[in-house]
Order: sequence, then structure tokens, then C-alpha cells
Amino acid sequence: MQQKKLEVCLSPALLHLYDIKDSLVVVIDIFRATSSMCYGIANGAEAIIPVATVDVCRSYEQTNYLLAAERNGEVVEGFDFGNSPFSYTAEKVSGKTVVLTTTNGTHAINESREAQRVLIGSFLNLSAISNWLKNQPQDVLLLCAGWKNKVNLEDTLFAGAVAHQLQNEGYKFDDSAILAADLYQMAKDDLNGFLKKTSHSERLKELKIESDIVFCLQVDLIDAIPVLDGDRLVRLV
Amino acid sequence: MQQKKLEVCLSPALLHLYDIKDSLVVVIDIFRATSSMCYGIANGAEAIIPVATVDVCRSYEQTNYLLAAERNGEVVEGFDFGNSPFSYTAEKVSGKTVVLTTTNGTHAINESREAQRVLIGSFLNLSAISNWLKNQPQDVLLLCAGWKNKVNLEDTLFAGAVAHQLQNEGYKFDDSAILAADLYQMAKDDLNGFLKKTSHSERLKELKIESDIVFCLQVDLIDAIPVLDGDRLVRLV
Repeated sequence: MQQKKLEVCLSPALLHLYDIKDSLVVVIDIFRATSSMCYGIANGAEAIIPVATVDVCRSYEQTNYLLAAERNGEVVEGFDFGNSPFSYTAEKVSGKTVVLTTTNGTHAINESREAQRVLIGSFLNLSAISNWLKNQPQDVLLLCAGWKNKVNLEDTLFAGAVAHQLQNEGYKFDDSAILAADLYQMAKDDLNGFLKKTSHSERLKELKIESDIVFCLQVDLIDAIPVLDGDRLVRLV
Repeated sequence: MQQKKLEVCLSPALLHLYDIKDSLVVVIDIFRATSSMCYGIANGAEAIIPVATVDVCRSYEQTNYLLAAERNGEVVEGFDFGNSPFSYTAEKVSGKTVVLTTTNGTHAINESREAQRVLIGSFLNLSAISNWLKNQPQDVLLLCAGWKNKVNLEDTLFAGAVAHQLQNEGYKFDDSAILAADLYQMAKDDLNGFLKKTSHSERLKELKIESDIVFCLQVDLIDAIPVLDGDRLVRLV
């Protein structure tokens, strides 16, 4: 049997370089889209429908779905909510379907649709998704959503956290996976302190979402793994 | 005065995300194109002309230029030499002009042409180029050539080495620069050992160019900085 591959794609703009049709792709947008998706699905949301544009999101207005739209870190005017994890509590989303568009995360999901399976990762479900991946025969690609296609530190760090958990599981790492795992090794004892260095963290501070950040860096809060099923994310069973 | 920026672009496929027209761009292809360019210019080559294709390189046949072509790590048949630094000794290149095409490095140079200035970096001229950059007023973009547009460890490490030298010089780092500097911090005491982990290093081993690798990881062997002047790289004076 050929050795399984673990690759890390540091930006959606590099995704065309990878052949993903037989791979499991894990989409990563730590601040905050994929953290909120994981949290929402764990809290009983029936489904989350990631859509590319605010207009497509708005087209669901006549349904009983919850509509969520974020651009540049803020809730788009006229929408129920954006991508703060605190909008994805059981009280708000249990039994509901959410239609969501975000700056980076939903774009990355859309770009991954030809993969064999698209899963959603975040620190909240780190061990759950790593353990599940280990037991699958397929190659894995960890796709960092980044910020408008630029590489960012928090998504790379999470890719490194997964790589770290898969380190002795027989995968062949590409250079980006090695890089991400090393970075995580360096940062793991103080993720929040490590990320304070980034320019992104300044932007997030201006948006007054520091409590979101702290929330999104909690490790293994939940077991749920969102998986793409047609046009919607549902809980992997 | 606005704070100068130091950005790292981890792949030529991400270069369109950066506005480089007022920036100094340093092109990095450690194994081996930019190492050989630095060494060749230091050894008195009059100029090195980076060209995109083997055919363009061949079109210089009727000149008295030296023709060098590398694809996938090997010298292309019919050419004087490829991109091994040992082909760029004073004995071979002093006073000569070399026309060179390589898999990754010359492509990255061509993509950078709209920058205010394009410079060539390698471990061989690390301090020379870092010290020169410090004294310029412009923003800096370190462009990693990678391997066929995928991110690689050795180019990222060198970007990190430059970032490390510019750390207390008043630059604002982007996330990729932070990431690269941290990686370098982790690897700097044993660059060769660190790079042995990479898949690229296996490929290079198959090519029997391990002595080239050791050569390219020598720090501060030379002072010369190649700079693009029209279609040719010459020594920065």
C-alpha cells in the first residue's frame, strides 16, 4: 500500500496545485468561520449552508433559515448575525438551518467541492477530526482559508496542530506540513500569546472581538465534525 | 513617516496579492538558482540573463554567452551547464555573461519585473543583502520561488533569516514574515539537519547534488548582491 500523504495548502490561491479528487480536505478558518461552523453543528444546527456571496445569502430570505453574513470581520447590515461563535449556541441554532457567507471560509469551502470529502476543522474539534482522519485510508489536504488569499498565522497553526497529531501515523508530509507542525510545536503552550504578534490580531482588536478569539482557541471543546453533504454542512456520523 | 513593511510571499502564485511597484523585491531560490546567481556575480560574471524558457536560452547560441539550463534539477541536454554553484566559479564565469533558465528561480524573477528593484538573495550573501535593505526607505517583499509554485522549506527559511536580521529595524511584519522568522529561529543552529526532513531533500539526494546543498547553506560567503538592470542581473554597486 502506498504511503498516505498529508499536505497543507496555505492559501486557497494555491489549491489548483493539488489533486484533491481522491483526498479528504479539511477547511480551516480559525477566526472565525470554521470555529463557528463546528460549534453550531455541535450545538444541534441541522445544517449550515455555506454560500459565496451576500446576495445568494439574501436570496434565502423567504425561508425559515437563519441568515448569517460577514464581510471584513463585521456582520453585514440587515442580517441576523455574522460569524461570531457566540451566535451559534444551542439556544440560537438547535434544530435550525443556517445560511452563511464569510470573507474567507465559505470561499475556501466552495473551492474544495471536487474533493472526495470536505470536512471542517477548528481547535474546538482538533482531536475529534485528527482521530477520525487517522482511521481513513485517503490522503489528507489541510486547506487554510487565510485572509483574502494571503497566508495567515492562525490557520497555519491549526494545520500544524493536526499535522502534530498525525505525526506518527504513517503519513508522508509535504514541506508546508513540516513547516506548520514546527510552528505549532513552537506555539502550542501559549497559542493566544503567540498569535498576539500578528497584524491580524490588531485588526481583530479593533473589531472588539477578543472574546471570540479566546473562544476559538479552546482545544477539544466538542466532538462534532461538520462534513459537506451536497450544498450543506451536516454532522458527520 | 509611515512604517516600512516587510512581507514574505511564499509562492510566485501569490505574488498578484501584493502591490510591489514601490517595493524592493528579493527573489529567493536557495536550491540552487539564486545561490548560483549570487556566487557567479561575486566571481566576476559580467551579467546573468534570466530567461523563461529553454528555447529562449537556446536562441543565444550564436553569441559568446555561456548558456545554462536546468529543468527538474538536471542540466538540459546540449547546454554548457545548469544551476550548480560549482559551475559559477571565477574560472568559469569571470568576465562572461551567462544566460540562464531554471525551473523556479528565473520564473520568479520574471514575475517580479514591475517591482521598483529586483534583488537576488541567498544564504551566501545573507548579511550583505540584509544590511543593504535596512538602509533603504522602501518596503521589502521577500519572494520565495518554491517548487513549481508550491511552498518549500528552504526558501521560507531564508526569508526567515532575512526577517530575523531586520527584526529590530522598524519594519512591520506580515504573518508570513513572522512565520518565516520563527521557523528560522528554530532551525538556525543546524540548517542542513533541519532541511533533511523535507521531501525536497530526498529528491536532491537522488540527483546526487548533496555537495551543492552544503555549499548553498554557507552563510555570508560573499558580499555581492545581484540586481536586475533591464533584462540582466548585474552586481549592485
